Amino acid sequence: MCRWLAYSGRPVRLEEFLVKRDRSLIDQSLHSRLGATTTNGDGFGVGWYDDQQLPRIYRSTHPAWNDRNLRELAAGVSSPLFLAHIRAATGTAVQETNTHPFRHGRWLWMHNGYLGDFLRVKRSLVLEVDPVLYPEIEGSTDSEVFFYLALTFGLEEDPLPAVERAVGFVEATAQAHGIEDPIQMTLGITNGERLWAIRYSSEGRSRTLFMSADRETVQALHPDNPRFKGLTDEDRLIVSEPLSDLPGVWLEVPESTAVIVQPGADEQVPFRPQAHRGPARSPEPALEANGATTTAGSGPPPPR
Amino acid sequence: MCRWLAYSGRPVRLEEFLVKRDRSLIDQSLHSRLGATTTNGDGFGVGWYDDQQLPRIYRSTHPAWNDRNLRELAAGVSSPLFLAHIRAATGTAVQETNTHPFRHGRWLWMHNGYLGDFLRVKRSLVLEVDPVLYPEIEGSTDSEVFFYLALTFGLEEDPLPAVERAVGFVEATAQAHGIEDPIQMTLGITNGERLWAIRYSSEGRSRTLFMSADRETVQALHPDNPRFKGLTDEDRLIVSEPLSDLPGVWLEVPESTAVIVQPGADEQVPFRPQAHRGPARSPEPALEANGATTTAGSGPPPPR
Amino acid sequence: MCRWLAYSGRPVRLEEFLVKRDRSLIDQSLHSRLGATTTNGDGFGVGWYDDQQLPRIYRSTHPAWNDRNLRELAAGVSSPLFLAHIRAATGTAVQETNTHPFRHGRWLWMHNGYLGDFLRVKRSLVLEVDPVLYPEIEGSTDSEVFFYLALTFGLEEDPLPAVERAVGFVEATAQAHGIEDPIQMTLGITNGERLWAIRYSSEGRSRTLFMSADRETVQALHPDNPRFKGLTDEDRLIVSEPLSDLPGVWLEVPESTAVIVQPGADEQVPFRPQAHRGPARSPEPALEANGATTTAGSGPPPPR
Amino acid sequence: MCRWLAYSGRPVRLEEFLVKRDRSLIDQSLHSRLGATTTNGDGFGVGWYDDQQLPRIYRSTHPAWNDRNLRELAAGVSSPLFLAHIRAATGTAVQETNTHPFRHGRWLWMHNGYLGDFLRVKRSLVLEVDPVLYPEIEGSTDSEVFFYLALTFGLEEDPLPAVERAVGFVEATAQAHGIEDPIQMTLGITNGERLWAIRYSSEGRSRTLFMSADRETVQALHPDNPRFKGLTDEDRLIVSEPLSDLPGVWLEVPESTAVIVQPGADEQVPFRPQAHRGPARSPEPALEANGATTTAGSGPPPPR
Repeated sequence: MCRWLAYSGRPVRLEEFLVKRDRSLIDQSLHSRLGATTTNGDGFGVGWYDDQQLPRIYRSTHPAWNDRNLRELAAGVSSPLFLAHIRAATGTAVQETNTHPFRHGRWLWMHNGYLGDFLRVKRSLVLEVDPVLYPEIEGSTDSEVFFYLALTFGLEEDPLPAVERAVGFVEATAQAHGIEDPIQMTLGITNGERLWAIRYSSEGRSRTLFMSADRETVQALHPDNPRFKGLTDEDRLIVSEPLSDLPGVWLEVPESTAVIVQPGADEQVPFRPQAHRGPARSPEPALEANGATTTAGSGPPPPR
Repeated sequence: MCRWLAYSGRPVRLEEFLVKRDRSLIDQSLHSRLGATTTNGDGFGVGWYDDQQLPRIYRSTHPAWNDRNLRELAAGVSSPLFLAHIRAATGTAVQETNTHPFRHGRWLWMHNGYLGDFLRVKRSLVLEVDPVLYPEIEGSTDSEVFFYLALTFGLEEDPLPAVERAVGFVEATAQAHGIEDPIQMTLGITNGERLWAIRYSSEGRSRTLFMSADRETVQALHPDNPRFKGLTDEDRLIVSEPLSDLPGVWLEVPESTAVIVQPGADEQVPFRPQAHRGPARSPEPALEANGATTTAGSGPPPPR
Repeated sequence: MCRWLAYSGRPVRLEEFLVKRDRSLIDQSLHSRLGATTTNGDGFGVGWYDDQQLPRIYRSTHPAWNDRNLRELAAGVSSPLFLAHIRAATGTAVQETNTHPFRHGRWLWMHNGYLGDFLRVKRSLVLEVDPVLYPEIEGSTDSEVFFYLALTFGLEEDPLPAVERAVGFVEATAQAHGIEDPIQMTLGITNGERLWAIRYSSEGRSRTLFMSADRETVQALHPDNPRFKGLTDEDRLIVSEPLSDLPGVWLEVPESTAVIVQPGADEQVPFRPQAHRGPARSPEPALEANGATTTAGSGPPPPR
Repeated sequence: MCRWLAYSGRPVRLEEFLVKRDRSLIDQSLHSRLGATTTNGDGFGVGWYDDQQLPRIYRSTHPAWNDRNLRELAAGVSSPLFLAHIRAATGTAVQETNTHPFRHGRWLWMHNGYLGDFLRVKRSLVLEVDPVLYPEIEGSTDSEVFFYLALTFGLEEDPLPAVERAVGFVEATAQAHGIEDPIQMTLGITNGERLWAIRYSSEGRSRTLFMSADRETVQALHPDNPRFKGLTDEDRLIVSEPLSDLPGVWLEVPESTAVIVQPGADEQVPFRPQAHRGPARSPEPALEANGATTTAGSGPPPPR
C-alpha cells in the first residue's frame, strides 16, 4: 500500500535517505520494488524532531517525486530521529489529514497495510476510542483510527502492549463481523526517544520490513564505502524496502516481531496480539442528550 | 463563516451568478459585505444537476477567486438547479471533504454557520448517526455531521421535519453539555426537484438569507434591465447576501423560517426545532467485538 | 512521457473513455503499458467543446487517478469533441500552466514527447514566437512554446503546413546548437470542428499512436459487443495507446503521418517538416528601449 | 499587492514573526491594514538560510493563513536570516513558480509592487535578460523577470547599482511604450550575508516600508517588554507594514531609499534609477537557426 522509513541515530539531513540513495524513499514513490503497489503517489509525510526535541510534520497530497518543497526541506533540515511515509491510497480521500505520520503529543505513528473491510468495522472501532481523544481524529483512514485505538489502550505508557491490545481488539472486532483478513501492518512509532517498528499480519504473511545492520557489520563488509565512514553505534534505519542492494546491510525483520531502537543495545521481541480485556482509559466526560452521565465505550465492562 | 447561493429555474450557466454579477459569489469570496468574515478563502464547492438529473460536485481547497477551473466550469456548464458555497474555515482542516455541498444519493446539503463548541459534542452527535450512514462521513466538519443527522432523522422522506428534529437533537445535546449557543445556520438543501432554504439560530439572530423576488415584481421594478428579460416564473435565487444593490429584487428571509422552492408557487413556513423523540432509522447492523448484536445509538432507549 | 486521447463524433460523456474502459486514460495514468514511463502522475488536463462550441479546460496538478473532480466532471459533461492528457514531467515544474491541452482562441493543443535539450534552444525558439502572441505564454514547457511556434507559423489558417514549418524550425534550431535528437512527438490539435493528430520524430522512431477503426469494421468484428451498438460513422478516437485488447479495433498511425478527423471521410497524409523560410506573422508592435521601432525576431528576413 | 518581511540578526524561529505577533505576516495575509489589497491569499513563500548557510525555500499556492505546513516549518526552523512573502496576484497564475522569494545561487529576491502594463513590455524586458540566465525563468510574473534583469545588470557583484540599472531599464522601456506608471516596488534582497531593502516607485508614492529601530532605542522605550530582552545590536526587521502598534519601534523607510542591513552599522542610502547604458553580461552563447553567431539583446552594443 505504502512505503516508509524511520531513522534514529546521529543527526543527519533528511535528504540523506529521502533523496540521496539509489532507491531512496522518493525513488520508491515512483518505482517501488517490493510494495503491494508500484506507485505510491497519493501524498506523503515527514515527521522529525527539531532542536527542541519537538515533533514537526510536513505533509502533502502531491506525489513525493514531484514535490519541490520536500526536497528543500529534506536538504535544509537535520534531525536525529525522523519518519517518512509515502502513500498509496486504498479508497479513502487523498488529503493531508489522511497522510502519515499521525501525531499526538510527542508521538508519531505511521502504518503500511490496512484494517480489513474497514468501513464495516469503522464505527465499532471508533466507539472504542477514548472520548477524550476522539475529537482529535481529523481524517478518514483506518491507520489513524488504529493509532487512536493504540493511544486508548495505553500507547503513551507502554507502547508494545498497547499495540498488542489494539491489534487484538481489531482482530476480535473483525471476527465478530465475519471478516477473514483483519489486519496487515508494519508500524513505525516513536516518542522522540525510542523507535518501535512492528511487523505483523493476521494471515502471517506480512508486508516486508528491514532494518540496517549494526555499524561494525556494515563497516566490515564495506570497508571502503565512504557512506559508512561516519556511522555510529546508535545509527539505525528501518525501512519497508532496502535503499540499496549492498549485501549484508539490510536484515529482514521476522514475522510477528517488534524492534525497539533505543540508546544502547536495540531489542527484538515477539509481537503477540492480546485478547481484549477492556481499555484503561479516562472516564467519558460527555453528557448524553438526556442529561444522564454515562461512561463511554465498553468501559471496564464486565457483563458485555 | 461562509457564503452560499442556490438557484432553481430555467437552465442557466453557472457563471451567471458565480461570476457575472457585481457582487457575484466569487466576488464575495474576497469581499463579503454581510458575512461574519470578510474573506471566504478556505475552499469552495459547486453542486449541480446534469442532463441526467444527477448531482455532480466540483470542490477545491483553493480560494474561489483564483481558481481557474471554477471559471471554466462555470462558463461551460448549464443547469436548472445548482448550489455553490465558499468557505471560511473555523478550525477544521481545509480539505475537499470539508467543503460544501455534501452529497448523499440525490441530495445536496450546504450550511453557513456552526454547531457551538462542536468538538465537545461531536462524539455524542456522531453516535446518533445511523450506523449504515456513518461510514460515509469523510470529513471533520460540524456541517457534515449535521447533514448525516438530518439524514438519520428522515431527510430523504420529509426534509423539514427531519431538519427540525436534527436541530432539536443538536440543541438538546448542547444544552446537556452546558453549551450556550448550540446552533447558527442557514441551510441550502435539494434533491434535484425542490430546494429548501432555512434560516435559524438558537439565539434568534441568524446569519442573513435573501431570496429573489418573483418575476413579475422584478420586471415591473426594472422594466429596462436586460438581465431580467428572460426570467420565468420558476426562477429563484437564494443567497447569503444580495448579488446586487437593485432595489426590490432581494427579499430577506425572516428568522426561523424555511423557504420551499418548487414547481408552481413557492412556500414559506415557520421553522421550529423538534424535541428529540428518537430517530427513525435502520437497525444497527454491526456486531460488537464480543459477538453480541446490539442496536446503535446511545441506548437501550425505549422511552426516548 | 505522457499519454493522451482525442475524441470526435456523436456526443458522449467524457467518462466513457477517461474512466469506463479496462485501460481507460485514468488507468493509464497509473499503469501505462506502451509509454516511455509507466506512471503519468504529474497532472492532467481535459479540454472539451461545450454546447456553445466553446473550448473549456479543466487542469490539475494532481494525478488523474486520485482526482475526484475529474471523475465528477467526466460523469457530468458530454461533448462531441474532447481531448485529455496525462503528464509525466521531465524537469519542468508541475503546475497547471504546464498542463495540456493548451488553448488559444478556439484551438486546443496537446503533445506527447519533447523538444530535445529544450533549455539550450528555448530562447531561440521563444524569440521566434510572434510578439503579439508572446505574452500569452504562461508556463515553462517545451510543448507550450511549440504550440506558439505553430500559431506563429499559421496554425489557425492551415494547421498541417504550420506544424510542418514549426517542426522544421525546431529541427534547424536544434541542429545549429549541435543537438542530435531535436523532436519527438505525437500531437493532438483541434479547432472544435476538425481534429488533427500527428506522429513524428526526428529519429524516425516515434511515440506510439493509434486510431479507432471505422464503424463498419468494428461492428463486423464484434457484432455482439454492446459498446459498439451506438457507433456512428463519424465517431473516432485517437490515443497514445489502445483502451482495450479487442482485435481489429485499433489501427496504428504510421510514422511521419498526420490524420485528419472531419465530417465525412477522414484523411491520412504524410507529415514532412518544412525547411524554415521565415514566418508569416504580424509586425512587431513593440518599441525597443531606445525608442526605435523594430520588427521582431528574424522578420520576413530573406537571406536567413 | 503583497506583503513581506525580512529578518537578519541572532537566530530566531521563523514563527517569531510569521505567527507570534498581533499583526504577524500570517495575520496580514487575511487582514492587511496598509496594503493595496486587504487579502493576500494567492500563495506565499519563505526563504531561509540553513545551518550550512544555504538558502532553502518553501512555497505554496494556498493562503498562508490556512497552511498547516507553514506553521510546522515556522515552529521547527530557526535561522539568522530569512525572508517571507504573501502574495495578492494581479493577473498572473497562482502557482509556486510565481511565488516569492525567487532564488538564484545564494541570492533571494522578493518584490511588492508591479511593473506597469507588464504584458506590453514583457518581451522587451525578457530579451534583455542574459541568455545564460534566461532558461532559469520558470514563472510568468513581472517580479521574476525584474530579478533576472537585476542579475543581468550585475546584482551578484554590486546589488544596488544593478537594481538601479534594472529600474532605469524598466522605466526607459515603459516610456518607449508610452506607459505612464513604469514601476512600483519595495524589494527585499539578500545573499545570505547582507540584506538590501529598497523603496521606490516611478510616481514617487511608493508602497510602505518599515524597519525596526535599533536595540538601544527599543529597549529604552519598552524597558519592561519581555519580547525585547534578548535583542542584539544586529537584529533588524524590515516589513511592508508594522507587526505591532508599539510606539517608536517601527521607522518608515523614506521614498527612494535603500537600506543595507549588515554586520556592524547598517546603512541608508538614496536609490536612483540609472539611465540604461547597456548591461554587462556574458556573451550570447546561442547560435541562431541559420548557424550565425549573434549577441543577444536589443543592441548593437560594441563596447559592452
